[in-house]
Amino acid sequence: MAKELKELTPRSVSYSQWYQDLVIKADLAENSDVRGCMVIKPYGYAIWEKMQRILDDMFKETGHQNAYFPLFIPKSFLSREAEHVEGFAKECAVVTHYRLKTNEEGTGVVVDPAARLEEELIVRPTSETIIWNTYKGWIQSYRDLPILCNQWANVVRWEMRTRLFLRTAEFLWQEGHTAHASEQEALEEAERMLHVYGDFAENYMAMPVMKGVKSASERFAGAVDTYTIEALMQDGKALQSGTSHFLGQNFAKAFDVTYTDKEGKQSYVWATSWGVSTRLMGALIMTHSDDNGLVLPPRLAPIQVVIVPIYKSMDQLAAIDEKIAPLVAELKKRGISVKYDNADNKKPGWKFAEYELKGVPVRLAMGGRDMENGTIEVMRRDTLGKETRDFDGIADYVQGLLDDIQANIFKKALDYRSTHTYVVDTYEEFKEKLELGGFILAHWDGTPETEEAIKNETKATIRCIPFDGDTTPGVCMYSGKPSARRVLFARAY
Amino acid sequence: MAKELKELTPRSVSYSQWYQDLVIKADLAENSDVRGCMVIKPYGYAIWEKMQRILDDMFKETGHQNAYFPLFIPKSFLSREAEHVEGFAKECAVVTHYRLKTNEEGTGVVVDPAARLEEELIVRPTSETIIWNTYKGWIQSYRDLPILCNQWANVVRWEMRTRLFLRTAEFLWQEGHTAHASEQEALEEAERMLHVYGDFAENYMAMPVMKGVKSASERFAGAVDTYTIEALMQDGKALQSGTSHFLGQNFAKAFDVTYTDKEGKQSYVWATSWGVSTRLMGALIMTHSDDNGLVLPPRLAPIQVVIVPIYKSMDQLAAIDEKIAPLVAELKKRGISVKYDNADNKKPGWKFAEYELKGVPVRLAMGGRDMENGTIEVMRRDTLGKETRDFDGIADYVQGLLDDIQANIFKKALDYRSTHTYVVDTYEEFKEKLELGGFILAHWDGTPETEEAIKNETKATIRCIPFDGDTTPGVCMYSGKPSARRVLFARAY
Repeated sequence: MAKELKELTPRSVSYSQWYQDLVIKADLAENSDVRGCMVIKPYGYAIWEKMQRILDDMFKETGHQNAYFPLFIPKSFLSREAEHVEGFAKECAVVTHYRLKTNEEGTGVVVDPAARLEEELIVRPTSETIIWNTYKGWIQSYRDLPILCNQWANVVRWEMRTRLFLRTAEFLWQEGHTAHASEQEALEEAERMLHVYGDFAENYMAMPVMKGVKSASERFAGAVDTYTIEALMQDGKALQSGTSHFLGQNFAKAFDVTYTDKEGKQSYVWATSWGVSTRLMGALIMTHSDDNGLVLPPRLAPIQVVIVPIYKSMDQLAAIDEKIAPLVAELKKRGISVKYDNADNKKPGWKFAEYELKGVPVRLAMGGRDMENGTIEVMRRDTLGKETRDFDGIADYVQGLLDDIQANIFKKALDYRSTHTYVVDTYEEFKEKLELGGFILAHWDGTPETEEAIKNETKATIRCIPFDGDTTPGVCMYSGKPSARRVLFARAY
Repeated sequence: MAKELKELTPRSVSYSQWYQDLVIKADLAENSDVRGCMVIKPYGYAIWEKMQRILDDMFKETGHQNAYFPLFIPKSFLSREAEHVEGFAKECAVVTHYRLKTNEEGTGVVVDPAARLEEELIVRPTSETIIWNTYKGWIQSYRDLPILCNQWANVVRWEMRTRLFLRTAEFLWQEGHTAHASEQEALEEAERMLHVYGDFAENYMAMPVMKGVKSASERFAGAVDTYTIEALMQDGKALQSGTSHFLGQNFAKAFDVTYTDKEGKQSYVWATSWGVSTRLMGALIMTHSDDNGLVLPPRLAPIQVVIVPIYKSMDQLAAIDEKIAPLVAELKKRGISVKYDNADNKKPGWKFAEYELKGVPVRLAMGGRDMENGTIEVMRRDTLGKETRDFDGIADYVQGLLDDIQANIFKKALDYRSTHTYVVDTYEEFKEKLELGGFILAHWDGTPETEEAIKNETKATIRCIPFDGDTTPGVCMYSGKPSARRVLFARAY
């Protein structure tokens, strides 16, 4: 694909323009001509595929199976759970007809008015309703429980202001939907899956997250409780990166799903749902990348190591090719994804910039002097640090370096979060720190009114009531009323 | 999930009822309450996932990358290619609105008439138009070619008469879309991918296929040529199992996609597209299964080996558990997917019937006498043949048996096809053989009129003009006019 290498807008000039530039120029995604819908390009999709594969393995290890449920939800299903429909009705894509016909002039096609659906179908914004309508047929007795299903799917929420990966009308995600015989079991499942998300974020994305429970006003529409992982982006804004919902018996009641227990008593079934989406791509980009381009954690990088030959003649290239071939084989043998880019139609400088932009964690370069000296140049993308090393033993070194980069970018993100997390006691200080960007731990009286007032005045929201951390009671910074514990505030995506 | 083991309708009584029973009772899929849309249940989805993984690896080995394009296609895009819109307009799900609102009584939700889209969006029935609209931005020069993308996605075609897996309004598939600088390259790509499908069908699904090119009237809407793999089901009907299209420059012209060649000349880009869908699940089921249930090829079976203990006391069970544990570990080490079912709430007879229904290729059973004699009972699902073997060396035996089953069911299907492929010279004989079911090789004059007449009179269609086989010219069995070669007729799904 034709592309000129261009500079990214520096983050200091405009963080949002930098983000937009980076997503486009690193070939991750682009806006389509369909309002609000993106095209995920091969390089971006390769990262998403790695995320999918790892998450899918984690879901299976925790006992879940994949299934697939319909794209369309009858309007009446969506309406069954009052809060659920309230939450999603305003952003629904509605299918009303099932046929086009040639227009009268014979010059194009129009919707055929005779092919109107009796009941409109909603393109799923989430699948609780269609799934619980299905589970009704699957569940009779306690022996049928638990049901632990996950689905990889596309969903549509008609967002008016969209942004690549972060907020798009259509996005890709996974949604887990589980059914349990007891409240306790469902609660444990909802927590378990939040921890799976947390482990994935920290150990694969190298992105530290704060785990906690949402305040009532930030809950998923139809949930009893919503658990969340919250990450801090480099511009000091929070990004909700995954949620897990304890749905109580709300959907079981809405769809009349009961089971007979061992004693023959009928009860409503308990539910959870949980999901992460292509939004994680945005989180990944904004956590690590810099003004030169993407910085990818080695565990999610489609290409972990790139090797570039620097040569003056085709003979010299042939000699380098020969020298590099066993190294490529050795790295592949170790399960490292490596690309040897000896294409002759691009200059080394162009290649260097390209792979920096694409966030390849380790770049090796081999030139004439290296060939003479038995060395190779190594550059790590995270620090841009360069060194010349002995060619012998380079596979071992590179393997260690990948682990080191993974650990280092996590530490860097964690340090950033530590220096941008503020504990404040007064509303004045709160507003002051908010301008610096970051997480703020402050006391809140627990009322939606105070939460709403703070949001209206400062655009900061309660990201979560953390599972861990300081649980000392105090006094609400806004109302002066008693507060059970500090909660986490931030401006958010 | 609660389930009583019930008999399937025998194939001899009603093949279509047998199919329906089997899909439901083996927990593969079920109809949803959304007209024409199916739910793919975990066991069915596990088979589909295996298919996906293998095909995806094959696509990547042939140089393709995955990407993702929007679900929605603006109506005007679909209209750009005249034959394409003609082919799909009659079965489109059309999105006309983007919001619901509470009704006047406050009792439910209705479509908000104020939220009507300026241009209707079609839920993709296939993605040529949206993809070629995107490729326009990706292609300027010969250096940008080829583009070799694939997408795993859901698509919607509003079918009125649906059947689980075989014909559903929504289905899952992959669609490859490639762009090339020359006609020759695009032709080679279209053929290459048909051969990938053929290899997959024969080597993994154990389903022999006939490869060939479609007649003009059976072509994909918008294609210059459609290549197909055609399989023969046990009821003597053909099933089109995968297609690969040479699209010429039709979509490049419709979306004005040109490239500059090395000499600086502008030309339209050449295209292919190719796809297989969840329809393959139907093909798999109908090729091998029997009146006892599914028969799965070992290479696609989610569980390849099941081991059932037969015991009279919990002590005896404990002894069997201990004996079996190292065998389970050994089989897993060899990459064989094995389940040891020692659940105490089901009787061995129930388990045997269940795993037969689910098509598990090999069943091992270990009872008290086996424990004494150092033996184990082995049953193979394809022939239902049982034997008692020494426990020592059983892992080796099972591994070999899986290969043997894979080969045997392919051979069985091939034999069926051989005995049900007829070479006929007269229309009388053609109609006679057609009633027996199977493939018929006959001469055709090459005109759509003759093809249409035969179809109307007999319901048989030209499945393909085979790539291989007898190419001797002859005389059309219907019109008596000259025929270039025999073509493949059958009644088809």
